[in-house]
Amino acid sequence: MPVQACGILHHALMASPRFESYIQKKRELIDQTLDSLVPQPSQEPCVIHESMRYSVFAGGKRLRPILAVAAYEIAGGVAEAILPVACGLELIHTYSLIHDDLPCMDDDDMRRGQPTNHKVYGEGIAVLTGDALLTLAFECFLGRGQAGHSLLRDTLARLAGRVAAAAGSLGLVGGQVMDIAGFPRDRQLSTLETTCYLKTGRLIEVSLETGAVLAKANEATLRSLAGYGRSLGLAFQITDDILNVTGNSKALGKAVKSDASHQKVTFAELLGVEQAGVQAKACIAKAKESLAPLGEKAWFLKELADFVLERQS
Amino acid sequence: MPVQACGILHHALMASPRFESYIQKKRELIDQTLDSLVPQPSQEPCVIHESMRYSVFAGGKRLRPILAVAAYEIAGGVAEAILPVACGLELIHTYSLIHDDLPCMDDDDMRRGQPTNHKVYGEGIAVLTGDALLTLAFECFLGRGQAGHSLLRDTLARLAGRVAAAAGSLGLVGGQVMDIAGFPRDRQLSTLETTCYLKTGRLIEVSLETGAVLAKANEATLRSLAGYGRSLGLAFQITDDILNVTGNSKALGKAVKSDASHQKVTFAELLGVEQAGVQAKACIAKAKESLAPLGEKAWFLKELADFVLERQS
Repeated sequence: MPVQACGILHHALMASPRFESYIQKKRELIDQTLDSLVPQPSQEPCVIHESMRYSVFAGGKRLRPILAVAAYEIAGGVAEAILPVACGLELIHTYSLIHDDLPCMDDDDMRRGQPTNHKVYGEGIAVLTGDALLTLAFECFLGRGQAGHSLLRDTLARLAGRVAAAAGSLGLVGGQVMDIAGFPRDRQLSTLETTCYLKTGRLIEVSLETGAVLAKANEATLRSLAGYGRSLGLAFQITDDILNVTGNSKALGKAVKSDASHQKVTFAELLGVEQAGVQAKACIAKAKESLAPLGEKAWFLKELADFVLERQS
Repeated sequence: MPVQACGILHHALMASPRFESYIQKKRELIDQTLDSLVPQPSQEPCVIHESMRYSVFAGGKRLRPILAVAAYEIAGGVAEAILPVACGLELIHTYSLIHDDLPCMDDDDMRRGQPTNHKVYGEGIAVLTGDALLTLAFECFLGRGQAGHSLLRDTLARLAGRVAAAAGSLGLVGGQVMDIAGFPRDRQLSTLETTCYLKTGRLIEVSLETGAVLAKANEATLRSLAGYGRSLGLAFQITDDILNVTGNSKALGKAVKSDASHQKVTFAELLGVEQAGVQAKACIAKAKESLAPLGEKAWFLKELADFVLERQS
């Protein structure tokens, strides 16, 4: 089955069969777990659960939970135990997209080929849906869906505190503030890199840390995985910017050139598409270099890095 | 010093000196702790930290953290250790007010005598400020500000999971959904009571549970305190509805009769002001009855219940 059909990364390269099979299996596990974690739409108040499920099951790539599961396995863990926590990371990502798409922020009508949450449920419910998903993420970090699993509450608490720091005003939310407040408009590459690290990189980095911390990895392994996450996150944002200029809206599932219409400073605009591509390649090389000490165990993350570079959506 | 000056509850009754002194001391401790927990406005991105502090230090009554501290002391704890966690409850309350006030929800311009957050910082930053405060609350539950304290991470994780459940789509957020989706419009008292329990009661109940759980109270004490919280929360909401009809906007710090203009179904409107008052009194009696097994140790919570009934703001 071509990777397109697996839905994680549409790309020009051919994926190895073991890569395709790994992604497909993990994605199934993640979707099953998400289905069990997010309340059913039959539960009152129905509209919020419908709306939560609308956005959670809108065809996301599941990049963050897959990274957490992969890091966990590399560090010696058995995937099933980490699934609810890994899904919490996806819920945080989904909440941030719903709020970012609101008319008072990026004002986007389409996301992953479907109308954005507020277009379907209205702005009030969209704000509350984001709030509910963020809160549910912490339930997942702190024991929801953990029955029968072996993760210690003590370790979960340590991890959840780390994710909260990465998601708050000095992380994900801070990055979005810089983005809408137009901070990168000083047109300094360093400011743009900080914005992008906070907005995208930190949650990707902490997804890898999640796997490492929960598997009780040693310091060196934690450093390797976190370093990979930081570089991968930056590469991911740069390719996003490039796709926003060169991509086609059907593959992307959202409008292209929306950055320019929002007058956003992007890597593609600041460096030019070609030089941005060079930069993305350098990040990917650095990401793979971070994995070197882990050897063959890290094969999946290495292959994934190549696909981030080649992705079309 | 009259209780007015202490700022927790403006009322017609005279408070006992020990009550006034207790509230004033705890409030100072809570404000100091909040000041250390919320990042300074000098930290980038400055605007979000300014905005977070604007709403956190806008003269809130600190009811939820005071309830947590009081329950903790009743169950044998020493106040200082619980302060960061208690402040996390206030941050959740503050985030929920900022989002509730948004134009896409209740569309309120004034809160506690000051312009609402979105009136000062704009809607985008207001949404993100709420998001950041909710996230910061979980940092507080999970270790922020805990250096040198004796609370076990294991207990904190258990507690934070409980608060998350009370704050999410089956709690606080669910109540707000019912409120804006007009659920109580079936004009059933039971629907209104459910809405109000989810929207206000559960966080008040869990504030008392927070103190009890962290002090490792036995089941009977936990039940007494949680029962008190449930009844107090309902009384609080009923008096809120009454004040919205009979209060003056100066004491309230927000527009009166806003419920009627939003066509909200309230206790005052459904039962009439007089009958709603009878109902509030019955809730307060029930709240105090819940405390009976705790004896004199619970003096503060008993006095507090009386003031909820008599409050003017």
